[in-house]
Amino acid sequence: MKDEKYYVSYNTVHNLVKGLAQKLIDSSFNPDVIVAIGSGGFIPARIMKTFINRPIYAVGISYYGVDKKHKNYPTKIQWIDEVQEQIRGKKVLLIDEVDDTRATLAYCVGELLKYKPEEIAVLVLQNKLKEKDVNFPPEIKRYYPAQEIGDLWIKYPWDADDIEEHTKLEKAMLERQASRSK
Amino acid sequence: MKDEKYYVSYNTVHNLVKGLAQKLIDSSFNPDVIVAIGSGGFIPARIMKTFINRPIYAVGISYYGVDKKHKNYPTKIQWIDEVQEQIRGKKVLLIDEVDDTRATLAYCVGELLKYKPEEIAVLVLQNKLKEKDVNFPPEIKRYYPAQEIGDLWIKYPWDADDIEEHTKLEKAMLERQASRSK
Repeated sequence: MKDEKYYVSYNTVHNLVKGLAQKLIDSSFNPDVIVAIGSGGFIPARIMKTFINRPIYAVGISYYGVDKKHKNYPTKIQWIDEVQEQIRGKKVLLIDEVDDTRATLAYCVGELLKYKPEEIAVLVLQNKLKEKDVNFPPEIKRYYPAQEIGDLWIKYPWDADDIEEHTKLEKAMLERQASRSK
Repeated sequence: MKDEKYYVSYNTVHNLVKGLAQKLIDSSFNPDVIVAIGSGGFIPARIMKTFINRPIYAVGISYYGVDKKHKNYPTKIQWIDEVQEQIRGKKVLLIDEVDDTRATLAYCVGELLKYKPEEIAVLVLQNKLKEKDVNFPPEIKRYYPAQEIGDLWIKYPWDADDIEEHTKLEKAMLERQASRSK
């Protein structure tokens, strides 16, 4: 049901990130830096900073050209360069909101590996359980999805026009799920 | 009352940004790019993108050295360089969460002006009505604070440990304010 929408409120995003921070601590992975993939990773990354207090470097990837047409390859719209010394030999926590086809995440991992980090761990709010276009390279040993869900249309709070309505739609969805599982 | 806390929930942040987007449109300021000051500006900037759909460039400023001691001058932890061509001749919307002493904002404005933008507009969620350490240079002709408040301790949602409690505290605060103004 690709048309089914999966609503996520801001408070849910906050709690998912808090849970992931605890998972990181439990797994003894102690990152030196956070790299946020823009723009979906910005909000989860900023919340993660509250719990693990590491600097955030932002990278921007776009699949849209100046003609606003979707392309099959990404363009870097902001990239780490003067700060690549911040990556070399460091433990990097790469954050995005969703692992859908895995294309963006794998591209960013590949680019960041060129800077010779000690390790890159990948963290997302939702991993969609579907066939991926690409796999992670073997260097990725730690992968932290807060939730694994079907191939739904995820509605993130930051994309909402009416955030009160969005928050209510999540509540109704969660109540439906709860009554179904009784 | 410097110790008084001013709570802001995520949904309030979202609505403040939505209101600011409308103000931008009403004032006919049509930015080419968003520059987010990290890490406080990341979340407002990402929400603004929903309403005006412009690319976000992130810049990071820290007043803390590697010794974690507070300094009186900022250090750039990520800066625009390969993308400075994205700034030249462009209308820039610079976003941070708060205008407190104005030091960070004025510093970023000064650095960005070196790249010869057509204009820089400054946008914040809250402007604290207090004596500022520095003024904006005369190049700043547009300044958009969503709220002007006293010198309170603003509690942003992304800094909350318990986000449900935080959301309740904002609700209680707003109810107290509403009953006082009756």
